[in-house]
Amino acid sequence: MRVVCEALDGAAYAQESVFERADVKTEFYAEIDKVAGADLVIGSSSSGIPASVFTEGLACAPRCLIAHPINPPYVIPLVEVVPTPWTGDAAVQSCWDIMLAVGMEPVRLTREVDGFIANRLQAALLWEAFRLLEAGIATAEDIDKTISAGLGRRWTFIGPFETIDLNAPGGLKDYAARLALGFFEFVKQGEPAEPWSDAVIAKADGEMRARVSLPEQPARQAWRDKRLMALAKHFQDVGE
Amino acid sequence: MRVVCEALDGAAYAQESVFERADVKTEFYAEIDKVAGADLVIGSSSSGIPASVFTEGLACAPRCLIAHPINPPYVIPLVEVVPTPWTGDAAVQSCWDIMLAVGMEPVRLTREVDGFIANRLQAALLWEAFRLLEAGIATAEDIDKTISAGLGRRWTFIGPFETIDLNAPGGLKDYAARLALGFFEFVKQGEPAEPWSDAVIAKADGEMRARVSLPEQPARQAWRDKRLMALAKHFQDVGE
Repeated sequence: MRVVCEALDGAAYAQESVFERADVKTEFYAEIDKVAGADLVIGSSSSGIPASVFTEGLACAPRCLIAHPINPPYVIPLVEVVPTPWTGDAAVQSCWDIMLAVGMEPVRLTREVDGFIANRLQAALLWEAFRLLEAGIATAEDIDKTISAGLGRRWTFIGPFETIDLNAPGGLKDYAARLALGFFEFVKQGEPAEPWSDAVIAKADGEMRARVSLPEQPARQAWRDKRLMALAKHFQDVGE
Repeated sequence: MRVVCEALDGAAYAQESVFERADVKTEFYAEIDKVAGADLVIGSSSSGIPASVFTEGLACAPRCLIAHPINPPYVIPLVEVVPTPWTGDAAVQSCWDIMLAVGMEPVRLTREVDGFIANRLQAALLWEAFRLLEAGIATAEDIDKTISAGLGRRWTFIGPFETIDLNAPGGLKDYAARLALGFFEFVKQGEPAEPWSDAVIAKADGEMRARVSLPEQPARQAWRDKRLMALAKHFQDVGE
C-alpha cells in the first residue's frame, strides 16, 4: 500500500486493475480511500461489476467510476465509461478527456448495468454461437469464420446499427420494417436460454485445442496482438 | 425466361438471386427446372429461407442448395453453403470448389436452420443492441462504437470462439469456467425477447438520419465499400 500511496502522490488519475471480484475490490477501495488526494479520479478496469458495488459511502466515491478497456488495451481503443449514481460530472469529464488524450475511444453509459455494453453484446453473440455448435449446425471454426470473414468485416468500422442502416434503401427504419419480425423469430427460437452445457464447452474447447495446443497459446496470443497492431495501423492509414 | 435459358446453356453453376420471398422463389425454380441441364448446380442467395422451401419435388432439387453471400459480396468473402435434405454431396462439393476458386471463403452448415448462421448471430447481437438503446443505457452511436472500436477488432480476424480461447490461460474451457454463469445472467435479463418496438426503431432511425440523411446514403454506402476494399487489401497484405 505504501507503493500505491507514493504512486498516487499528486496524480490526477489512477486506473485500478485489481482482481475482478467484488470483495477484493471493496477491500482495495477502502484502503485507497485513506490515501486518495481530493482531486484524484479513479477509473476501474472492472469488466462487469458496477463501481457502486465497491465504492458506496467512501469519501472518494464521487470521483470513482468504471473505465473498462478491452484486452489487449494497448491495441484496442475502446473504453467504456460508466458512472455510479454518485459519480460527479467533473470526474466523468476528467476521465473522458484523459482517455481521448491518450488515444483511446471512450463510450459513455448513462447509468450502470451488469456487464456494461461490451460484455452484454458479447454474451448475446456467444450464446447463439454455442447454441448453433450444440445443435451440430456447424463447427466452431466455421462459426468463427462466419464472423471473421463475414459480419465482422463491416462491424469493425461501422458497428451493427450503421451496418443495417446502409443495407436498405430507406435506412434503418426500412430495414426494420423488412426484417425485424424474421429476426425476432430467430431470437425466440433460442429461448429459454440455458447455461452452456459441459458437453458443448468440451466440444468447443476440443476444437480449439486441436487447432492450437495450450503450450502454443502464448505464441498465438502474440500473433493476435500483431494482427491487431496491423489493423490499428490500417485504420490510422485509411483515416475516416 | 428465354434469356435465362440461353445464359444457362452449358453452365456448370448458377447463382440465383431473385427477390427473397418464398412464393417468388418457388415460382422461379419451377421455371428453372424446365430448362436446367442435368449437370447444373444452382446456389441460391437466399439470406434466411432454406432451399427445401422452394425446391421440393423438382427434378433439379438434388443440385439445388443455398450459397448465401453477405452484402456487398464483391468485398466480403463469406458464403454460407447450406444443403437441403435432398441436395447431393456432389452438388455441395461443386459449389464449395467454385466458391474457393473465385476467392470466396465458404462455411458449411450440416443442415438447414432458419436464418442460417450469419443472420442468427446478427439477430442475437442486434437484439441486445436494441434493448440497450431502448433502456437508454447509451446512444446508438456509442453502441456501434463499442463494436467497431472494441469487440469487432478481434472478431474480424479470429471470430468469437477463438477470441475467448485466447483470453484465458487455460483456453476456452477455462474462460467458460470463469465467465459462463455471469454471461448467462446478462442473457437471461433480456428474456423474454420482444419484437423491436416502434419507439426504439424511431429512436435508432432518428439517430442515423441525424448523422447521414437518406439523400447522402448512397455516398456513405460507397464509402463503406471503399473501406471494405481497403480492409480486404489489408488482410491480403498481412496474410495469415
